[in-house]
Amino acid sequence: MEILIIGAGMMGSAMAVPALEKGHRVTVAGTPLDAEIIDELKRSNYHKTLKRELRGDISFRQYEEISENIPESDVVVSGVSSFGAGWFAEEVIPKLKSGQKVLAVTKGLHGKDDGTLETIPEWYTGLREDIYFNAVGGPCISFELADRVETEVAFCGRDKKVLEELRGIFGTEYYHISVTDDVKGIETAVALKNAYAMAVSLAIGAYAGNNPEQSGRYNAQAGLFYESVREMRELIKLLGGGENALAFGAGDLYVTVFGGRTRRLGVILGSGIEFSEAEEQLSGVTLESVAVIRLMGKYLGNRLAEYPLMAHMYERITRNTVPDIPWNSFLHDYLIDG
Amino acid sequence: MEILIIGAGMMGSAMAVPALEKGHRVTVAGTPLDAEIIDELKRSNYHKTLKRELRGDISFRQYEEISENIPESDVVVSGVSSFGAGWFAEEVIPKLKSGQKVLAVTKGLHGKDDGTLETIPEWYTGLREDIYFNAVGGPCISFELADRVETEVAFCGRDKKVLEELRGIFGTEYYHISVTDDVKGIETAVALKNAYAMAVSLAIGAYAGNNPEQSGRYNAQAGLFYESVREMRELIKLLGGGENALAFGAGDLYVTVFGGRTRRLGVILGSGIEFSEAEEQLSGVTLESVAVIRLMGKYLGNRLAEYPLMAHMYERITRNTVPDIPWNSFLHDYLIDG
Repeated sequence: MEILIIGAGMMGSAMAVPALEKGHRVTVAGTPLDAEIIDELKRSNYHKTLKRELRGDISFRQYEEISENIPESDVVVSGVSSFGAGWFAEEVIPKLKSGQKVLAVTKGLHGKDDGTLETIPEWYTGLREDIYFNAVGGPCISFELADRVETEVAFCGRDKKVLEELRGIFGTEYYHISVTDDVKGIETAVALKNAYAMAVSLAIGAYAGNNPEQSGRYNAQAGLFYESVREMRELIKLLGGGENALAFGAGDLYVTVFGGRTRRLGVILGSGIEFSEAEEQLSGVTLESVAVIRLMGKYLGNRLAEYPLMAHMYERITRNTVPDIPWNSFLHDYLIDG
Repeated sequence: MEILIIGAGMMGSAMAVPALEKGHRVTVAGTPLDAEIIDELKRSNYHKTLKRELRGDISFRQYEEISENIPESDVVVSGVSSFGAGWFAEEVIPKLKSGQKVLAVTKGLHGKDDGTLETIPEWYTGLREDIYFNAVGGPCISFELADRVETEVAFCGRDKKVLEELRGIFGTEYYHISVTDDVKGIETAVALKNAYAMAVSLAIGAYAGNNPEQSGRYNAQAGLFYESVREMRELIKLLGGGENALAFGAGDLYVTVFGGRTRRLGVILGSGIEFSEAEEQLSGVTLESVAVIRLMGKYLGNRLAEYPLMAHMYERITRNTVPDIPWNSFLHDYLIDG
């Protein structure tokens, strides 16, 4: 099969590893933002940000070199971040061939004009109903996938046969793929986990510095983890997702707290630094977590208070203050029979 | 109020800290197994296993010194481990005064004669319906509670007024207590998290040694975390718990993977060592995780295969072999509409 990865970020590029292993021919094409990554890959097969060599039946191209050949690939992997999702919609989607299969690693939700939210596969399907748009969720750090660490993910999409075909293409003895048509559930979990991983990391910054193994203040982290899982469950339900998605979301939250870039911002904020200064310290890092918090704050409006940890993150980001973590607002009394 | 803690283990003893802070008078009474801990506390106020001093309006007694005074206390905290739950049932429960309030930190489930399982508060209520039996769940490491780290827990019991009274007694600005009558949900989560924390720790042992911060193989840990949350959700449901309990269970799982003693056994097993040898290496550590895995294996019988991670742990413990982690059995395909 011909696999075309558009977007040479870490996760998109890492998807080449299982595909190559299964004997497919892979092309990694950079977006206009990835020019340097592609130049280096062309020179040395070394991926600058993934920090790994990509070798085998693989070639590297700038976007303009392949843009007319998109319909020829069997599967298009969208490797863009949520900030590139609009570019993919405008630039790539019109070029797709009817019936073509797309698998997106993009993490995010799309704010519709009417104020509601939709997942990226739903958004894209609204643009082209003749394309199979699928997405990846569940716990996976890109460089660990590239290193062939055991990984459990879910592919979601509307067509079971297409999902099973994609599983056949990418599934290896270390990349384990569940398939589901719960696009809303998996993709909401994928988007939210960045926001909540940042929230859990507040406690790491507040109590444990950068090495929780040594200084450990796990109760506080776990208290925020509990509230994160609770709010994720409610929000997945609110956005129409199924109940099985939460386990993938909880695993994804776990891996993002410990292995993701989002953690860095949460740790800095947790140490008592204002958002604007934290942002400066991290200049150059794309902060999808911040984008999703803004989006959820805007979407939820008056209902934001029902999600006190999300509300706290929204306040930190939009007001640039350093309020205490509202521990008592995470109390949830309930009576089964009451 | 007079608070009597029976069982001078780490968690029972740590409960003294918030109670003292709220101005209550606390007595910590050892079980016959705690004689040395109590002797040291009497001498120096230093708790040997908690590794903290306990000071304030607190006294320390051997069990035989207080056994006739049990009815005089306003609240009895059961600080025994699951291995002491039977002792508490036989020795302490008959001495309680009608209407007395008990709060248990014990983690475990009770196998009934008919082969079914019940929670410890349910078991005890079956013995004495005139007593209010309550229990603590949610993420909390004892020594962090003693250090006044922010902690989110749930107290569960059948009577809302009693639960709120208990919250009034123990709730502080760092010990945050939700209350619920979902005893089955909270206590099933409490018992299971030990088993699953050991399971997640397998990946730490297999890939990361003892310091996941340094060597990091988080995808594998997170893959097991995902499956743990999924199986916990199913088992909480199977045992009659409500759906809100899972968030407390997920937080508790998180804290136990990183801060608990259970992790040590999982890491050793994960490195490829047989159970019998691992047990020898850890001689002296009470392994509630092992007990709950045995109990679940026996209870589930033929249905054990529906919980492949629990089944894997059961196999490791009962057959003393080192099978591969069954990653592909954690795939869960589902179709919302199908």
